[in-house]
Amino acid sequence: MNILAIDTAGKTAAVAVMRDDTLLYETASNTGLTHSETLLPMVDTALKSCGLTTGQIDLYAVTAGPGSFTGLRIGLSAVKGLAFACNTPCAGVSTLAALAYGMAGEGTVIGALDARRGQVYWAAFDLATHERLTADTAEPADAMENFVKGCKKPVFFVGDGAALCYNKYGCVPGVLPCPQPLRVLRGAGVALAGKALWEDGGCVPPADLLPEYHRLSQAERDRAAREAADGQSRPEGESSK
Amino acid sequence: MNILAIDTAGKTAAVAVMRDDTLLYETASNTGLTHSETLLPMVDTALKSCGLTTGQIDLYAVTAGPGSFTGLRIGLSAVKGLAFACNTPCAGVSTLAALAYGMAGEGTVIGALDARRGQVYWAAFDLATHERLTADTAEPADAMENFVKGCKKPVFFVGDGAALCYNKYGCVPGVLPCPQPLRVLRGAGVALAGKALWEDGGCVPPADLLPEYHRLSQAERDRAAREAADGQSRPEGESSK
Repeated sequence: MNILAIDTAGKTAAVAVMRDDTLLYETASNTGLTHSETLLPMVDTALKSCGLTTGQIDLYAVTAGPGSFTGLRIGLSAVKGLAFACNTPCAGVSTLAALAYGMAGEGTVIGALDARRGQVYWAAFDLATHERLTADTAEPADAMENFVKGCKKPVFFVGDGAALCYNKYGCVPGVLPCPQPLRVLRGAGVALAGKALWEDGGCVPPADLLPEYHRLSQAERDRAAREAADGQSRPEGESSK
Repeated sequence: MNILAIDTAGKTAAVAVMRDDTLLYETASNTGLTHSETLLPMVDTALKSCGLTTGQIDLYAVTAGPGSFTGLRIGLSAVKGLAFACNTPCAGVSTLAALAYGMAGEGTVIGALDARRGQVYWAAFDLATHERLTADTAEPADAMENFVKGCKKPVFFVGDGAALCYNKYGCVPGVLPCPQPLRVLRGAGVALAGKALWEDGGCVPPADLLPEYHRLSQAERDRAAREAADGQSRPEGESSK
């Protein structure tokens, strides 16, 4: 089985090609260029390096969220386009699960992405089995305190929100450092998470691939705030049409 | 500090660019092409992606051995050529240390490369600190039994010799599996090992960069065997000229 894995959920764009259990090709780029510029050339290089065409890909794995809304749309749109011709199955994996699948060990791995507005997207996984321990959520980093203090040690934070978490919990006994270059989401992690989703029967046709934003966009939040303000400014008893 | 890291010691060719503690670019290719075909195009793509030229590289990190003799010569020759113009410092790192630097955790990581002839090149490192626990050596996998049974757990095997080691020691309590795609040598590991060598004052000018084969080549072993046979076939008391 040939798996093409793609991630554009954060600052780094990542692509990997895995054949069964063998990683054929992996690349990650965090060079300040936008994913819309870098992603398809990266996919092209990956496929050519492996001597493959899109017709020979059996499964597309892509991070479906959480992450940058624009980033997720770039990755998902690219995969929908690539997978459309052959109606190839797609695995829309959790970005936080993909981070966890890139690590091996004993203890707990917490995937964390900077969600701005003082929040992180986070979820925890068993390091050895990659079993999910908590649901993907967007919260202030303070909110994971009870979990971090109570969970199986050692604990690692990975992802671009790891620095925020290490600032808060780096001194908790059993929290171990993870060098910055090893916190980056790897294409191999996306491929492994996608393969696990395939084995669990969780894949979909490209048309059904959808993002998992985990919260409202800025525009939706602004509209909700405007509507709430409009509601408050109306005289009591008057209902909206 | 811009670090360009290169590995061609095994089947996979890897390249990474790290700026201070940030991984800008990383790629690994295990597609059956020879390193002499893939390496320089990979370096070219990496530098162009980062908007860098060789004149802006402050340190070259390269796996100097153990590994495939031909592979090591390709990587070292490429780095000597790239570093020559500006006499850029070079870090010739242990392939096994670079494998260890690609992992984070608590316990012990054993880097293992298939050395053919029933042997593995291996060395052990502390997972959290990457402190070296044993010297790089070439031995039958049986020879590490006492070490594996006595060392700090959990233990992981990484590198293309990991499968041999898991076959022998996978059932020892405290030995944990590592998914195959995560056993591959990462460019980030070479860059981190190179940075550590730089901080320890262990870097050299390109002209002084040398391979560390850790044993004789096939041709040298054949010659030694021929000379020994010649010596035995001479009449007693006759010395060679």
